Amino acid sequence: MTDTDAQYGTDDGTRITDEVIASFAGAKDERFRELMRSLVRHTHAFVRETGLTEREWHEAIAFLRACGDITTDTRQEFILLSDVLGISMQTIAVNHPTRANATESTVFGPFFVDDAPRIDCGGDMSGGAVGEPCWVEGTVTDVDGRPVPDARIDVWEADADGKYDVQYDDGRLAGRAHLFTDSEGRYAFWGLTPTPYPIPHDGPVGALLAAADRSPMRASHLHFMVAAPGFRRLVTHIFVDGDEYLGRDSVFGVKPSLVTEFARRDSGDATPDGRVVDGTWTRARFDIVLMPESY
Amino acid sequence: MTDTDAQYGTDDGTRITDEVIASFAGAKDERFRELMRSLVRHTHAFVRETGLTEREWHEAIAFLRACGDITTDTRQEFILLSDVLGISMQTIAVNHPTRANATESTVFGPFFVDDAPRIDCGGDMSGGAVGEPCWVEGTVTDVDGRPVPDARIDVWEADADGKYDVQYDDGRLAGRAHLFTDSEGRYAFWGLTPTPYPIPHDGPVGALLAAADRSPMRASHLHFMVAAPGFRRLVTHIFVDGDEYLGRDSVFGVKPSLVTEFARRDSGDATPDGRVVDGTWTRARFDIVLMPESY
Repeated sequence: MTDTDAQYGTDDGTRITDEVIASFAGAKDERFRELMRSLVRHTHAFVRETGLTEREWHEAIAFLRACGDITTDTRQEFILLSDVLGISMQTIAVNHPTRANATESTVFGPFFVDDAPRIDCGGDMSGGAVGEPCWVEGTVTDVDGRPVPDARIDVWEADADGKYDVQYDDGRLAGRAHLFTDSEGRYAFWGLTPTPYPIPHDGPVGALLAAADRSPMRASHLHFMVAAPGFRRLVTHIFVDGDEYLGRDSVFGVKPSLVTEFARRDSGDATPDGRVVDGTWTRARFDIVLMPESY
Repeated sequence: MTDTDAQYGTDDGTRITDEVIASFAGAKDERFRELMRSLVRHTHAFVRETGLTEREWHEAIAFLRACGDITTDTRQEFILLSDVLGISMQTIAVNHPTRANATESTVFGPFFVDDAPRIDCGGDMSGGAVGEPCWVEGTVTDVDGRPVPDARIDVWEADADGKYDVQYDDGRLAGRAHLFTDSEGRYAFWGLTPTPYPIPHDGPVGALLAAADRSPMRASHLHFMVAAPGFRRLVTHIFVDGDEYLGRDSVFGVKPSLVTEFARRDSGDATPDGRVVDGTWTRARFDIVLMPESY
């Protein structure tokens, strides 16, 4: 080993990796150093393991630029990329490990808005959105089965055409609401039977899915966000039992515990609240168990 | 294990990873499957190992978007990101392993242009760019020491203000040229003594460097690209021995074998070709060894 070897290290394939990690040693924030160390190790190992060619490197750079080019305030291609590579769900798994009998989490998605109207228990959250009516009811309890009164439940979903209100240009507010559990932790509302829809797939992420022969479809679902003082906020969906996309949801959001029976009823069948429905409707039950804030 | 567990797998932290890898099984291109498998494994392992928080995930998404926002045809932030994380150099190491006594490769950089003027051996490539004159000479040979005549050598560099011609708005063409080796594989030209300069650091990559307390400076260098029939194209730099940034080049391009003495001469010292230089000048020798096309 010459003096120059000693100065720069030997080139055994990880010399560069070690050098890059060392370059972050001066960062004041320890967490930042930790993140960079792991990021550099894994990105370099990816290049070495695959023997990434220079042409593939250029294609990767062009892909990232194309993601940047299509991204706007209402279209976030980097989130879609994270979603279809399962990175979003892996992050959720790390941050919301399932403990005891608590309800499992899944992806938040890009379609939540803050100003959804309040409805009473048993009210209608569809707001005129088209689709098959669906009665959803359940309870919110703690992990010991004690009811959680006054828990805030936000619900949102796409219409039967597979679109959320914010995807229309007319400023409509539909298919979303919030409500509170009653003194016994119960809730209920009218919504729409969820239907499958594609994530935006006219950009580079869509091309990635096409190259993989993967469908851009999401399994049919209804979003829930549940919050109450003393409990961890829960972000989840319920999925429709029997849905054809359950096993190939494009963002890997499906968890078995969240698959729910949406029992189909005929036009004449009695509804829970006496509402007269013109056509078929469905009925689902989702009992929610919240984790304590500190578990 | 219930039927649903069997359907979706158990959630031991790598269930999602396995599911995502399986989703690429239908891709027709085997190489694409291989790249995705490694990419998914490493990105997921990064999330698990670091326990990436949801806030950090949001910051990463915002960082990528900021890279996209600042990127144009003449400013490529994703390349800068790859460079400062050493991913570019790792890719070069994988694609251009150093064998026998062949000259080592380093980063190509974003400042090469195709239409650089031709100069004769001993000609001046500075084209009016400001800086201290520098005489560079050497040979191009094969790994057995046999001269390579008529090898094309492209050279390019920044001026004494740390800027390449293309970074000025006036369309100038300076500090770049191409020439050919003579019948004995020799070459020589007048250029400028290389000086250090910063990579563009007014964007998200600059913020990353600042958080790491890293300098955006590149070690002083002069670019070479050498091509001849029957040989692998060589892309490299020569670096200036004694330069203060050799040990902390912002893109990790320095290799010990490329560090070259630029011997300083006084105004009155005789030049190799009788040119009269007003002020100090330097003299460097760089003997280039090309790898055969198939090695």
